[in-house]
Amino acid sequence: MISPIFFVFSLIVSCSYALHVQDFCVADYTAPQGPAGYSCKDPAKVTVDDFVHSGFGVPSNSSNVFKFGFTPAFASNLPGLNGLGVSLGHTDVEIGGVVPIHSHPGATELVVVAEGSSIIGGFIGSNNKVYQKILNKGDTMVLPQGLYHFFVNQGTTPAIIYAAFSSEGPTVQLMDTSLFKNDLASDIIAKTTLLDAAQIQKLLGGTN
Amino acid sequence: MISPIFFVFSLIVSCSYALHVQDFCVADYTAPQGPAGYSCKDPAKVTVDDFVHSGFGVPSNSSNVFKFGFTPAFASNLPGLNGLGVSLGHTDVEIGGVVPIHSHPGATELVVVAEGSSIIGGFIGSNNKVYQKILNKGDTMVLPQGLYHFFVNQGTTPAIIYAAFSSEGPTVQLMDTSLFKNDLASDIIAKTTLLDAAQIQKLLGGTN
Amino acid sequence: MISPIFFVFSLIVSCSYALHVQDFCVADYTAPQGPAGYSCKDPAKVTVDDFVHSGFGVPSNSSNVFKFGFTPAFASNLPGLNGLGVSLGHTDVEIGGVVPIHSHPGATELVVVAEGSSIIGGFIGSNNKVYQKILNKGDTMVLPQGLYHFFVNQGTTPAIIYAAFSSEGPTVQLMDTSLFKNDLASDIIAKTTLLDAAQIQKLLGGTN
Amino acid sequence: MISPIFFVFSLIVSCSYALHVQDFCVADYTAPQGPAGYSCKDPAKVTVDDFVHSGFGVPSNSSNVFKFGFTPAFASNLPGLNGLGVSLGHTDVEIGGVVPIHSHPGATELVVVAEGSSIIGGFIGSNNKVYQKILNKGDTMVLPQGLYHFFVNQGTTPAIIYAAFSSEGPTVQLMDTSLFKNDLASDIIAKTTLLDAAQIQKLLGGTN
Amino acid sequence: MISPIFFVFSLIVSCSYALHVQDFCVADYTAPQGPAGYSCKDPAKVTVDDFVHSGFGVPSNSSNVFKFGFTPAFASNLPGLNGLGVSLGHTDVEIGGVVPIHSHPGATELVVVAEGSSIIGGFIGSNNKVYQKILNKGDTMVLPQGLYHFFVNQGTTPAIIYAAFSSEGPTVQLMDTSLFKNDLASDIIAKTTLLDAAQIQKLLGGTN
Amino acid sequence: MISPIFFVFSLIVSCSYALHVQDFCVADYTAPQGPAGYSCKDPAKVTVDDFVHSGFGVPSNSSNVFKFGFTPAFASNLPGLNGLGVSLGHTDVEIGGVVPIHSHPGATELVVVAEGSSIIGGFIGSNNKVYQKILNKGDTMVLPQGLYHFFVNQGTTPAIIYAAFSSEGPTVQLMDTSLFKNDLASDIIAKTTLLDAAQIQKLLGGTN
Repeated sequence: MISPIFFVFSLIVSCSYALHVQDFCVADYTAPQGPAGYSCKDPAKVTVDDFVHSGFGVPSNSSNVFKFGFTPAFASNLPGLNGLGVSLGHTDVEIGGVVPIHSHPGATELVVVAEGSSIIGGFIGSNNKVYQKILNKGDTMVLPQGLYHFFVNQGTTPAIIYAAFSSEGPTVQLMDTSLFKNDLASDIIAKTTLLDAAQIQKLLGGTN
Repeated sequence: MISPIFFVFSLIVSCSYALHVQDFCVADYTAPQGPAGYSCKDPAKVTVDDFVHSGFGVPSNSSNVFKFGFTPAFASNLPGLNGLGVSLGHTDVEIGGVVPIHSHPGATELVVVAEGSSIIGGFIGSNNKVYQKILNKGDTMVLPQGLYHFFVNQGTTPAIIYAAFSSEGPTVQLMDTSLFKNDLASDIIAKTTLLDAAQIQKLLGGTN
Repeated sequence: MISPIFFVFSLIVSCSYALHVQDFCVADYTAPQGPAGYSCKDPAKVTVDDFVHSGFGVPSNSSNVFKFGFTPAFASNLPGLNGLGVSLGHTDVEIGGVVPIHSHPGATELVVVAEGSSIIGGFIGSNNKVYQKILNKGDTMVLPQGLYHFFVNQGTTPAIIYAAFSSEGPTVQLMDTSLFKNDLASDIIAKTTLLDAAQIQKLLGGTN
Repeated sequence: MISPIFFVFSLIVSCSYALHVQDFCVADYTAPQGPAGYSCKDPAKVTVDDFVHSGFGVPSNSSNVFKFGFTPAFASNLPGLNGLGVSLGHTDVEIGGVVPIHSHPGATELVVVAEGSSIIGGFIGSNNKVYQKILNKGDTMVLPQGLYHFFVNQGTTPAIIYAAFSSEGPTVQLMDTSLFKNDLASDIIAKTTLLDAAQIQKLLGGTN
Repeated sequence: MISPIFFVFSLIVSCSYALHVQDFCVADYTAPQGPAGYSCKDPAKVTVDDFVHSGFGVPSNSSNVFKFGFTPAFASNLPGLNGLGVSLGHTDVEIGGVVPIHSHPGATELVVVAEGSSIIGGFIGSNNKVYQKILNKGDTMVLPQGLYHFFVNQGTTPAIIYAAFSSEGPTVQLMDTSLFKNDLASDIIAKTTLLDAAQIQKLLGGTN
Repeated sequence: MISPIFFVFSLIVSCSYALHVQDFCVADYTAPQGPAGYSCKDPAKVTVDDFVHSGFGVPSNSSNVFKFGFTPAFASNLPGLNGLGVSLGHTDVEIGGVVPIHSHPGATELVVVAEGSSIIGGFIGSNNKVYQKILNKGDTMVLPQGLYHFFVNQGTTPAIIYAAFSSEGPTVQLMDTSLFKNDLASDIIAKTTLLDAAQIQKLLGGTN
């Protein structure tokens, strides 16, 4: 017997086909981008692979002076996230490692410690107050939008921290690289930060 | 005599010409689409017909098992609505007909009964509470964003219901077709809904 | 036999109870109001009547010089709409009546002619172009946000127009009352509109 | 020596004190709530504990028919998240367990498999197409806003799934409880879902 | 000595390169435009000149009947503003000049008097109440979104008024040109505004 | 003669009175605040003074090490701005003065040089690129949301810079005070910024 629901399908399916404007807008990286995100891929070519990313299965590269690594699942590498206002990052912080002071312009971050213990998490309010706490496995912490924040792994095991963001493509402004890894004149750094010339030269990578 | 206002016109007209970024953005269905909607048609080619739709004058097709029909005035067929955050639908519900349980991801619906009486309108909160009422001609009812809702025409005349949406392109997720009109494996339906295998097979349209 | 689904209910119900922050926020007209709308009524006291309004069943009062009437279904009289970004209005326009030039700051309007014919609908872009069309029963028309618009019923029957708005509480700025029904000095009206003093005095209600 | 920066502090600190309107708005659960969230706690009483939640360290309760549990870190139990547009959930799915079909009105979900393997993740578009994939440890998957989705743990170990949401207080509409754990009349369920009366009675928990 | 921070740079720079989706989206005037703004220029081609505009250094053209001039710094001529939700305008009002009654659909304006004194600033609420005040150098005044407003320079020196808008591309609807500088039929103006036919003809520029 | 428009007034005025939900929401500093802003003052008590601020007429206090001063016209001191998404600031920068490196979490800034010349304006992208230019009187410059920026007055006259913000209450995070004017432990500053201990101690105001 054919189900009576069969007869409604041609109506509904064709109807909804024309309307799925906002179900999702999978990123087409080859078309123009606008303030709201990437252009949408042709829905007929969208597959489940546009919504799945496997990058977190591999440890991120932490061979740097801070001993931390970061792998994003952002709209820029997970096209199904485009326009949807959320993303995730996977952060590895080695024993004794830190995530240096940085901020995400306009995005709030909410972290969960998936592995590790005795991790200092902290942020600084625009009132210059420090909000800082020792985090252990299973703890979550809010880092409100745009504020400076950092982590220090004081524990005896490497840490894995998952970070959720209120944006599908948060940017990051790292204090050190913003000041010292560009062509900003050293006297302007000095005037606008009150750091000493010798300190600035050292961090700019010059001989000291 | 030439009006003195004449002299200000060249200034104002040319000035406003350059600025009408947000007056409207009539959909150009041939250009890329983004998370915020369709690309904008060249304003010089926009006419009043981009803002007018005549589809509601014809009864919608209700020859299905539920005995209801739906005609949209969405950005996908009324290009002047693009980006403007509101739309309308015209629903016909025959005597004894129903609008089956469905939801609109992210869009609130506000209906008005234009014709008909003794129509049950209802929605189900995420607290599982049912909000249900008999509606008559001239009644309006709110169906908050994303929640399951339905209508049953218990009256003695066909009903016409206009629905306003808080989106120019609301999508619809109809429970029956979402479950039974796709390639979802029947054992997954069973596990994730607790429906019996026989019930599922019947609705999938198999022999029973 | 007790259904096995019974056992999951205590978990789910209590869980969802705590979380239904955004299902809806029914207006509590007695508590403080903020930029995003009214405060929320205690969810335990919300009933289906907070979501239903019956005002459209009665013709609106059109005994004025323009021969039109308007009944709103806005958050201010339909508390379940609070914060949900859509509303409806019911407009009666008698034979020969007009809806005078007005605008809705920040809200787009989408109308459907439910009754009547030969109704001029029009709006004026910021480029001063007029977008104008004869509307008949079943026609919909977009009036983009903030722009001047008007209706003239040239037909032989009274018209009923439903208007959907992209705001739960659109305000209206009627040109005539904005200029002439307040304490704006007539010389300021003259300077800023170029209208003649005699015209202004007449509309201000003085003897002419 | 006193640092010269000392002298700027009284200016800056007092200035920023008055302005930190949008740094954060920690929820005050005792004051009125509005469409945009809870009222803000007095900033002088805010401490780091308002931004930290430790609930994920304890396994969630999964003693139900579906064998899954869920612990939220939402604005309703993590007050520092109020108004910030992101949240996290910790989901345990036992061996053979499922997360039943549900949707989050208006919130996108992005999951990462922190523990476990061979987990089917799937969602259903409004075009009734199923997007389904086997997920393993480290995989992330997008569940676009408002669409039905589910998980099935086919692996040999319990799974831990972290879910990030594009809302600080997503609601959940679980299909089974929405239909069967309320006072919706069984004939209305039948009409609006096409389920058989016997099936409905069984799930309603009646004798069969 | 090479700074140890050197080693982190390759990681951070390449990482942030891929992610700067939302730092800015400089307008590419040659690509499609959408409801959220212009398409983004290739970031590699963006220079500081995309963020700087020098038009305010030259007085704006005020040789019109109202004796005011306006120069915009909007996304349409300052491409770095695209998508960022704010803009500025420079207004010159000569002695005895006025800014005629107008509104900005959906944008709030906040002015500061940079030069001049004894300037009447006013707006009209949708309750028809006039909010009007004499402004002097250094005064700021809010003109809420979408409402009619105007300025009259009663002082003895030309005025310079800077206007900040809550939109990167506010449109302007000037009452006089909206009514009288288009092809709106004079009888429709008469019916929808109650102005006299003679007044209308005069402002339309006909012989009187 | 009484104008015929008189008769429409009672209708329109009373109608619009009930609806002006979104005309404006003047801040009531004594009532609860939420994520969207302050509670609204009783509209009947609102006067034009709620929309006007005279603080820019007085030079701001620039007697600090950076030789700059700042006066806000934000929702926190200009109550009519509440909820309207724009604000202004008045900045004085003395000869040789600087506005030190800072950012505004989530708000874009658009400046205009009202007085002065040879002012370096600059911001740093999340790609660590510096966008820097010499600004003169009448120049405007965009500082995109959340990014570090600064000004240096190299000219021979004091500068006055007006800054428009895409928020009615932007917060400011000043790099120097965020790091050195709080109770952040010096070893955490060292680890997360790579600054030398001696430099940190000096800026913390200790003996050196």
